[in-house]
Amino acid sequence: MVKVKVISGGVTAPRGFKASGVSCGIKGSGRKDVALIFSEVPAIAAAVFTTNKMAAPPILISKKHVQEGVAQAVVINSGNANSCTGRRGITDAIEMAKITAGELRKKCLGKISPYQILLASTGIIGVPLPMDNLKRGIQNAVISLSYDAHLDAAEAIMTTDSFPKEMAIEFKIGNKTLTLGGMTKGAGMIAPNMATTLSVLTSDIRISHSCLKRALRKSVDKSFNMITVDGEMSTNDMVVILANGIAQNQEVVEDSKDALIFQEALDFLTQELAKMVVRDGEGATKFIEIIIRGGKSFGDAKTIAMTVANSNLVKTAFFGEDINWGRIIASIGHSGAEINPHDIDIYLSHHQIVKGSEGLPFNEGEIKEVLKDKEIRVTIDLNLGDSIATVWTTDLSYDYVKINAAYKT
Amino acid sequence: MVKVKVISGGVTAPRGFKASGVSCGIKGSGRKDVALIFSEVPAIAAAVFTTNKMAAPPILISKKHVQEGVAQAVVINSGNANSCTGRRGITDAIEMAKITAGELRKKCLGKISPYQILLASTGIIGVPLPMDNLKRGIQNAVISLSYDAHLDAAEAIMTTDSFPKEMAIEFKIGNKTLTLGGMTKGAGMIAPNMATTLSVLTSDIRISHSCLKRALRKSVDKSFNMITVDGEMSTNDMVVILANGIAQNQEVVEDSKDALIFQEALDFLTQELAKMVVRDGEGATKFIEIIIRGGKSFGDAKTIAMTVANSNLVKTAFFGEDINWGRIIASIGHSGAEINPHDIDIYLSHHQIVKGSEGLPFNEGEIKEVLKDKEIRVTIDLNLGDSIATVWTTDLSYDYVKINAAYKT
Repeated sequence: MVKVKVISGGVTAPRGFKASGVSCGIKGSGRKDVALIFSEVPAIAAAVFTTNKMAAPPILISKKHVQEGVAQAVVINSGNANSCTGRRGITDAIEMAKITAGELRKKCLGKISPYQILLASTGIIGVPLPMDNLKRGIQNAVISLSYDAHLDAAEAIMTTDSFPKEMAIEFKIGNKTLTLGGMTKGAGMIAPNMATTLSVLTSDIRISHSCLKRALRKSVDKSFNMITVDGEMSTNDMVVILANGIAQNQEVVEDSKDALIFQEALDFLTQELAKMVVRDGEGATKFIEIIIRGGKSFGDAKTIAMTVANSNLVKTAFFGEDINWGRIIASIGHSGAEINPHDIDIYLSHHQIVKGSEGLPFNEGEIKEVLKDKEIRVTIDLNLGDSIATVWTTDLSYDYVKINAAYKT
Repeated sequence: MVKVKVISGGVTAPRGFKASGVSCGIKGSGRKDVALIFSEVPAIAAAVFTTNKMAAPPILISKKHVQEGVAQAVVINSGNANSCTGRRGITDAIEMAKITAGELRKKCLGKISPYQILLASTGIIGVPLPMDNLKRGIQNAVISLSYDAHLDAAEAIMTTDSFPKEMAIEFKIGNKTLTLGGMTKGAGMIAPNMATTLSVLTSDIRISHSCLKRALRKSVDKSFNMITVDGEMSTNDMVVILANGIAQNQEVVEDSKDALIFQEALDFLTQELAKMVVRDGEGATKFIEIIIRGGKSFGDAKTIAMTVANSNLVKTAFFGEDINWGRIIASIGHSGAEINPHDIDIYLSHHQIVKGSEGLPFNEGEIKEVLKDKEIRVTIDLNLGDSIATVWTTDLSYDYVKINAAYKT
């Protein structure tokens, strides 16, 4: 286990990173709506994007830009997703990168090309970006860049989030202390009419492009891809990492011991950020961890975990603080994954409630107490193999319906 | 189009069928909980079962019995699903068939073997069947069999249903008038801790076993498999049809003109019954029809229809009477099915609101009026091919959460 130390500073904790978060009026509320993260030197870049076939223009453009493998800034606006905006959406996204590169050049912050800008938009779907506002916002964001504005940036990417989500950690490779920072957004996997998770990670580590790419993909699969509030997927999801190498460590390359250390540190950070998204889930009153053990394969274990986690019946039962294992077992059965229907065990916290697919007698008072907790752990043993999958989710409350029904387009 | 006439009589409308519905105390409420449907002569039988891998013992036994191709009675209890009940569950299900056959023989109703009994249980999961009660119930049900107790039977299979669901129709093949009857249950695809759809269909038609089997499979794919309230699937779903041939028509065989007529009549009945289930959906305030046009394949069209129909975001938007097409289009994109992201049209009733994946201006007042209706139709044109799929669903309301959270095991 790698020793990881949580520190303050969010995305600007690693050396050489500046950030800013400003308001330009895209959000009617006047809240911050443009975030900029900037590395003083070109950084190795990797990203993972939504698989939604309706992927929005900023996603399409970022996908193209990140292929270069090097980036120097990430610009994000909230309040408008620039999604389902036709040809104009593409033009606007390209323009967003150009404006950012141009403003950074103007301030003599380097010979930055638009191809080194990654971008994201999150907010309402189907409305063109107000480019005049955005331009002013980006100009202001460039001027405001600072080594300690990480929280401003984290606030500027919020949509229905009730709190900004950021974290930074230190870890060691050899005798070098390295830093990883990150921020994310999302109130549930979804937010009314909006994009969902959008994360920016930063590091001062020196690492090869292929190693960074692979580590990010792996890490997202263990974190952001393991959370669900309602099984929805947005058109604007993106997780991006910039590694600027300022720490001057010996370059971390694939299949090395150092790569494993970095992977562990990255996994820690992405999992903590992902869990913050679940904790802020729309209307959530419970944070629920679902652990599948004994799966035939990781794929099977994850499918079952996700099916249970997305079951409205399971979610409403937890909201009602009722241990309705019949609903859990029905979900397991219809997930499509391989199971032995006669040999499923279910535990609530450390109390076994189902053994060999049959109910066990349990102490009602004890179970009631466990169900009252804000954090609940359900472990399901499939008794088939060695694979494990852990998914984090929420309950389904009146407030989820209220938040999503009351919102008007 | 085959001319179909709706008549009264439910499952006992076809000649030679008797039914009953009695109470034996499995339900604490004292409501009816044992239903029996009996054909005076052995009937050709076919059935479709849940694909849930946790399929309950009565499903496993019925699957075996229906392989004979002939059955004479269907016995159903509500209040207890006999699911996740281990070896004892299997023994009890076999016993349930034996008791029914024995009681029917005692009343001199024919030389009925237990293999000619199909059975189903619906209700709480994980609790053994109270066999003493059930035995009394079956005895009573046999005594109570009559040509007009169709409503008693329909009531006896209810769980959280708010009304009994039955229908009968007449149609002609040549100059013979044939009759089809049916009953179903389900308040949404799911009900608290319970099984979901469970349907018994009866007919006096003479039809070959292979033709009946194929017609039922096809019909279920166009009806019960096209409804969803919350995407859940129970351990106890079953649709069974008995055709006793008393109408003395020329035997209907596969790939004939008569088979097509029967198919149309059967589709009408199963779709009407399936829609009743949706109309009774837990907490539903709207009945929503989602039509996908222009799909590359039926599979793709259905996948998209189901993804939209099961989206909590789409469902809460309809509950809030808001036309949030961004949520619809995000669902379409993440369904996994093939689409052209730049060419999707969406209509609400006859108003087009999205063209080529971009929003159109619309008359807000008119749209508001449409959204106030109890019945809403959304048509999505994928502009890719000729395939069409229609799915029926409900909105997601406070009451769905309330019904499912307040229920205690």
